[in-house]
Amino acid sequence: MEGVDILPHERSKKQFDVDAMKIVWAGSRQAFEVSDRMARLVASDPAFQKDNRSRLGRKELFKNTLRKATYAWKRIIELRLTEEEAGRLRFFVDEPAFTDLHWGMFVPAIKGQGTEEQQQKWLPLAYKMQIIGCYAQTELGHGSNVQGLETTATFDPDKDEFVIHSPTLTSSKWWPGGLGKVSTHAVVYARLITNGEEHGVHGFIVQLRSLDDHMPLPGITIGDIGMKFGNGAYNTMDNGVLTFDHVRIPRNQMLMRVFQVTREGKCVQSNVPRQLIYGTMVFVRQTIVADASSALSRAVCIATRYSAVRRQFGSQDGVETQVIDYKTQQNRLFPLLASAYAFRFVGEWLKWLYTDVTQRLQANDFSTLPEAHACTAGLKSLTTTATADAIEECRKLCGGHGYLCASGLPELFAVYVPACTYEGDNVVLLLQDLMQCHCEVQTAEDWLKPSVMLEAFEARSARMCVARAQNLSKFANPEDGFAELSADLVEAAVAHCQLIVVSKFFDKLQQDIPGNGVKQQLQNLCYIYALNLLHKHLGDFLSTGCITPKQASLANDQLRSLYSQVRPNAIALVDAFNYTDHYLGSVLGRYDGNVYPKLYEEAWKDPLNDSVLPDGYNEYIRPMLKQQLHNARL
Amino acid sequence: MEGVDILPHERSKKQFDVDAMKIVWAGSRQAFEVSDRMARLVASDPAFQKDNRSRLGRKELFKNTLRKATYAWKRIIELRLTEEEAGRLRFFVDEPAFTDLHWGMFVPAIKGQGTEEQQQKWLPLAYKMQIIGCYAQTELGHGSNVQGLETTATFDPDKDEFVIHSPTLTSSKWWPGGLGKVSTHAVVYARLITNGEEHGVHGFIVQLRSLDDHMPLPGITIGDIGMKFGNGAYNTMDNGVLTFDHVRIPRNQMLMRVFQVTREGKCVQSNVPRQLIYGTMVFVRQTIVADASSALSRAVCIATRYSAVRRQFGSQDGVETQVIDYKTQQNRLFPLLASAYAFRFVGEWLKWLYTDVTQRLQANDFSTLPEAHACTAGLKSLTTTATADAIEECRKLCGGHGYLCASGLPELFAVYVPACTYEGDNVVLLLQDLMQCHCEVQTAEDWLKPSVMLEAFEARSARMCVARAQNLSKFANPEDGFAELSADLVEAAVAHCQLIVVSKFFDKLQQDIPGNGVKQQLQNLCYIYALNLLHKHLGDFLSTGCITPKQASLANDQLRSLYSQVRPNAIALVDAFNYTDHYLGSVLGRYDGNVYPKLYEEAWKDPLNDSVLPDGYNEYIRPMLKQQLHNARL
Repeated sequence: MEGVDILPHERSKKQFDVDAMKIVWAGSRQAFEVSDRMARLVASDPAFQKDNRSRLGRKELFKNTLRKATYAWKRIIELRLTEEEAGRLRFFVDEPAFTDLHWGMFVPAIKGQGTEEQQQKWLPLAYKMQIIGCYAQTELGHGSNVQGLETTATFDPDKDEFVIHSPTLTSSKWWPGGLGKVSTHAVVYARLITNGEEHGVHGFIVQLRSLDDHMPLPGITIGDIGMKFGNGAYNTMDNGVLTFDHVRIPRNQMLMRVFQVTREGKCVQSNVPRQLIYGTMVFVRQTIVADASSALSRAVCIATRYSAVRRQFGSQDGVETQVIDYKTQQNRLFPLLASAYAFRFVGEWLKWLYTDVTQRLQANDFSTLPEAHACTAGLKSLTTTATADAIEECRKLCGGHGYLCASGLPELFAVYVPACTYEGDNVVLLLQDLMQCHCEVQTAEDWLKPSVMLEAFEARSARMCVARAQNLSKFANPEDGFAELSADLVEAAVAHCQLIVVSKFFDKLQQDIPGNGVKQQLQNLCYIYALNLLHKHLGDFLSTGCITPKQASLANDQLRSLYSQVRPNAIALVDAFNYTDHYLGSVLGRYDGNVYPKLYEEAWKDPLNDSVLPDGYNEYIRPMLKQQLHNARL
Repeated sequence: MEGVDILPHERSKKQFDVDAMKIVWAGSRQAFEVSDRMARLVASDPAFQKDNRSRLGRKELFKNTLRKATYAWKRIIELRLTEEEAGRLRFFVDEPAFTDLHWGMFVPAIKGQGTEEQQQKWLPLAYKMQIIGCYAQTELGHGSNVQGLETTATFDPDKDEFVIHSPTLTSSKWWPGGLGKVSTHAVVYARLITNGEEHGVHGFIVQLRSLDDHMPLPGITIGDIGMKFGNGAYNTMDNGVLTFDHVRIPRNQMLMRVFQVTREGKCVQSNVPRQLIYGTMVFVRQTIVADASSALSRAVCIATRYSAVRRQFGSQDGVETQVIDYKTQQNRLFPLLASAYAFRFVGEWLKWLYTDVTQRLQANDFSTLPEAHACTAGLKSLTTTATADAIEECRKLCGGHGYLCASGLPELFAVYVPACTYEGDNVVLLLQDLMQCHCEVQTAEDWLKPSVMLEAFEARSARMCVARAQNLSKFANPEDGFAELSADLVEAAVAHCQLIVVSKFFDKLQQDIPGNGVKQQLQNLCYIYALNLLHKHLGDFLSTGCITPKQASLANDQLRSLYSQVRPNAIALVDAFNYTDHYLGSVLGRYDGNVYPKLYEEAWKDPLNDSVLPDGYNEYIRPMLKQQLHNARL
């Protein structure tokens, strides 16, 4: 079977209702329909073409993004799209741009931290894009540590103004997206100083550029911070550098919802509970987990389809074997497919959790906030790290061709990696009294009991916590112990988060899932996800005595058997993501499987193929071949 | 302490003789001196500047590489450099170019597979670069599987010629470096057909382009295959696509050292042993292992220096803590530092092994070849995969700034990843009778006995082999078992290769190592390498009963204590690699630690900063802000 016949043949083998699975993946019929409509809208409009991105120089690339972002905004207005639709449209345009920060950070910051009055003044301007805003927090010398920021905002009571200033080189704002070339305004984080005293870090709305001619205002120096990882990728974004030389703003441009500076320069804590900020963090983090499942599913879709198309090494009858039929390939690919679904469902749960926490906060119930906060932090770290690694693994699973930009995977990787948490994760974990669990697995099939699997993961997590707590207690000073054992604590946190992902997958299976065979497929994926983790972290399970080596070996047998069950459904399981070829952006992952003719076609578009002889032939190659280098100008 | 004072202060804390360590790292004083001289030569010559690479468009980038490669060749001639010196010079120029394939693949292929006569005809032309050659093996539809190649070479006895032909789209040669725009000749691999019969895949010297005007010869279609992963990176190379339409070459351009076609079209096996080819593979693979230690040490050097410069989160006295002082950072960084040294020494051993095997081959002793072949295959896979992962980990260890091209790490990653083995590794392992080993560790210090550590690794490897063999024996058909259990077999192969790396590190420690404190440092690194592997693969060690959970916990305690011993020497240990700032190519890894001012300076060189207003302001940004999109042209 050749090229375009392979994937239809694969699809004919599926054992479940793909359309029903598409609804499960999207979360609801309504969500599916909005996504589907927006994806088609973007894919069918040539203005959103993106397959030339890797070939463009920085300036051309950036100008092109300005055009697309502006055009997208024009379409949003013309079509009177809802907020949800506009969000999905931007998602499928799939190109980092200043609008991401405007809608995703600037507007929410004003909404969350601005007073009623401030919101009434600034939000209408932002909603119409009469101003474009960004979020200026990180500095050249200071990343995640907000309390370490050096930029100052000193209150001048004579003029009723704040003076925003960058006292050192390392205090330069550095990284904010949309800052370098586009934004007219920013929410700037700075140390508040009144009457010579410091009062912590707060947000200030600062105008950066003239609304007449877009030139930076006096005292403000702005630029782009230069090339970032990858072809295309985040180079479409003007991540910027910004310094202030005693820039003055009116007092009412400090965001004063929870903390106020009066006309006299006195600091007043408002009666709005500070915990509200944590509610926002839960929201941001749940979107990050959702984004992880999108990026991961995209990479898995490409790798799975191409693994069916690609053949390597002979089988008996002389035709090379589809690489998806090799157990080593399945062993690397199918757990990633399972992870895509697992992260999708844990993301869904986090969305629910956010709604629940928000409702409780409105009723002044703060009881569930700390755990929600810790959970989302850990899950964010777990899913982003796993996704970045998985995208690169998918690239490798595509063999050499995954290295071509035309595969879409290099750019997906380069765009995704900043989402990772770079800092060690120090979630404080709650101990649970599950020390008495005994795993009762005696056959490979026993591993297919939800209670058995969950108990193993619960016991591992709990025992790792207890062991760490015992080690911590040996230190006279708990802080020293925490510092010394932090690597171990991270492992316990990972174990706890994996337990959450596994248990939310099992919860999903408890729900009513319509569609022929859909539940069976999800069950297979759930067990693959869990058994693969068990294998990968076998040391944890064995050292805490949660399972025996014999049981581990049975788990492996079960895993292999599950791979065989997933195999005929693999293509349909990635079709269920409902991605257009435009969104996938990969010759290897094309829906029709027509990979090789299209790769060949794509190659000729490279600028080097504009002419037969390369630029530089006469100056360099010819003198070398003709042994005339002695008088060549090099 | 600020910026430029930090690294000198760090260097003052070292407890060993760095100059002596530099010799150990280089392998010998002579090797050190050649490397040092060539590195300085390249670094001091502005013609070899490379820090603008990420900003160049494809055409400009490629032309620039042609200039550098040609200039390098000119200098090699002018300075009458030896082969070793020329190799080191090209290494430090650090830019993938057609010359890599000419010297690294084309010349060796003729040397290894050509007859005396063929060598006499072609090598002098190649040595003077009167012809430029590449190595055309892989095809669009066929990667590692040489036996699956589709290109044909049909003998025409009437004209005493071979007809080279691409019968299908998937038979297009695809990937060969130097092919797309530069090479005049190629060694082309094709299925030999004489008298209507196939006789396997062989190499043929084919002229591709005219030596007069560089135009492709009749019947030959060539182009570049397009953009690849990363900024700069392998986009300096013209990886190419090539198809043949019945291209004729004389019979004497088939490489006939081991297999000949006579004037009549008869096939004759020569009396040169075929095993010679495996000797060449051992050679190629040992250079790949050596390259892994170079790439890894470079990334580790950048991450270690910047981890000392970078501060994050407060300590008691208000100054932020150097991130290298966090145990989580040490736990991720120091094992990579240890791996750099471990791979260096196992590479040294492979070099020795190659010499040994070659000498034996010349004496018709083939006894050690199979094991050498298997070892090098496994070690290549282990070291390249670990290195690619480690470079990315080093990038993450640099926090957000690692994502900037100025950090050097994105390009290092993108350049390195193709070296990885994409296929599963199916080394056949030899069983050893070490089933009776018992680990006698009772205290953390017991782990510092070489015999204890080696026995644990030996037992783990042996027992995993035995367990796999037992599982294999349950299958009626061994091939089915091999296919079904291949993922498990790969794990056993990894265990075996890790044992080799650990034991070669211990062997190194047995040698006479001059220099104050040098041996102690290497010992620390050796134990870190081994104990970290033990922790990462704890499941293997526990499930095979090689160690107990209690002993594993003691191993962890020992690991933490070793980190504290390495900490004061960390900067000196990466200084010992003796890399120039030019070669490192990283603002974060600068020898002087003056990171932030230089990052700031570098940013302004981006093309986007050529003008204050970005290209596209008038067309896109202004109409959006002014609410005039309805009549904008987008």
